Amino acid sequence: MDYNNEIEILDNDFPEPLCAACGQQHSDEENHFYAYTDEVDDDLTCHICLHALVEPLDTPCGHTYCTLCLTNFLLHENFCPVDRKYIMLQSCKKSTVLVKNLLDKLLVICPFSEYCQDVLPRCDLEDHFLNR
Amino acid sequence: MDYNNEIEILDNDFPEPLCAACGQQHSDEENHFYAYTDEVDDDLTCHICLHALVEPLDTPCGHTYCTLCLTNFLLHENFCPVDRKYIMLQSCKKSTVLVKNLLDKLLVICPFSEYCQDVLPRCDLEDHFLNR
Repeated sequence: MDYNNEIEILDNDFPEPLCAACGQQHSDEENHFYAYTDEVDDDLTCHICLHALVEPLDTPCGHTYCTLCLTNFLLHENFCPVDRKYIMLQSCKKSTVLVKNLLDKLLVICPFSEYCQDVLPRCDLEDHFLNR
Repeated sequence: MDYNNEIEILDNDFPEPLCAACGQQHSDEENHFYAYTDEVDDDLTCHICLHALVEPLDTPCGHTYCTLCLTNFLLHENFCPVDRKYIMLQSCKKSTVLVKNLLDKLLVICPFSEYCQDVLPRCDLEDHFLNR
């Protein structure tokens, strides 16, 4: 067996390390990715990425997006994607405890399903990886 | 039959007219009252009145209360009831569209259950009274 080839194959399969928070492979410019057990309420989804909000940020006009999604959007635009009102990233604020709690308790499936069948609140996934 | 007595009895039974928004009898200083079909998520309840939030208001420290509950509380106090951080009513803000939508769609029972068995989203109750 050609050892170098094996490394190469492994490198191709895993070009980046797995994220310690979500257990998936993604760059720093991409959101965490979670597998939810149930359909997520439309109102808890980001209007940019259409997934459940991650690190939600509120605009002054009252809309909520993932921090990463809105940050990337505002690199090229200066308006809220929903109502097109003028906004600046600096005037957006972290969402409230209420919204954070609703997202924290969304149930997700451990991504290492080959070895683990656990279902747990999204906020517990990072600790779950450490304590398995 | 003593007509005056009857009026008096009626007045005692209904000292105030029914509210056009919730169909219940309450003063302007009291929140609307709704009968929910399901238990309301803890995170959607006000930490002052312990009912589902009505006209939610966010504090700068990220907590959410009914506008009436927080307004009444801040008549005598100057801190957030949850984390006791200093707050002023003027620095509190209406909650976001996300929170408004989650509360709007909570299912409530028409309070005139003797004549109507309808169950509908909370935000539709006022129109329901007008269109029955």
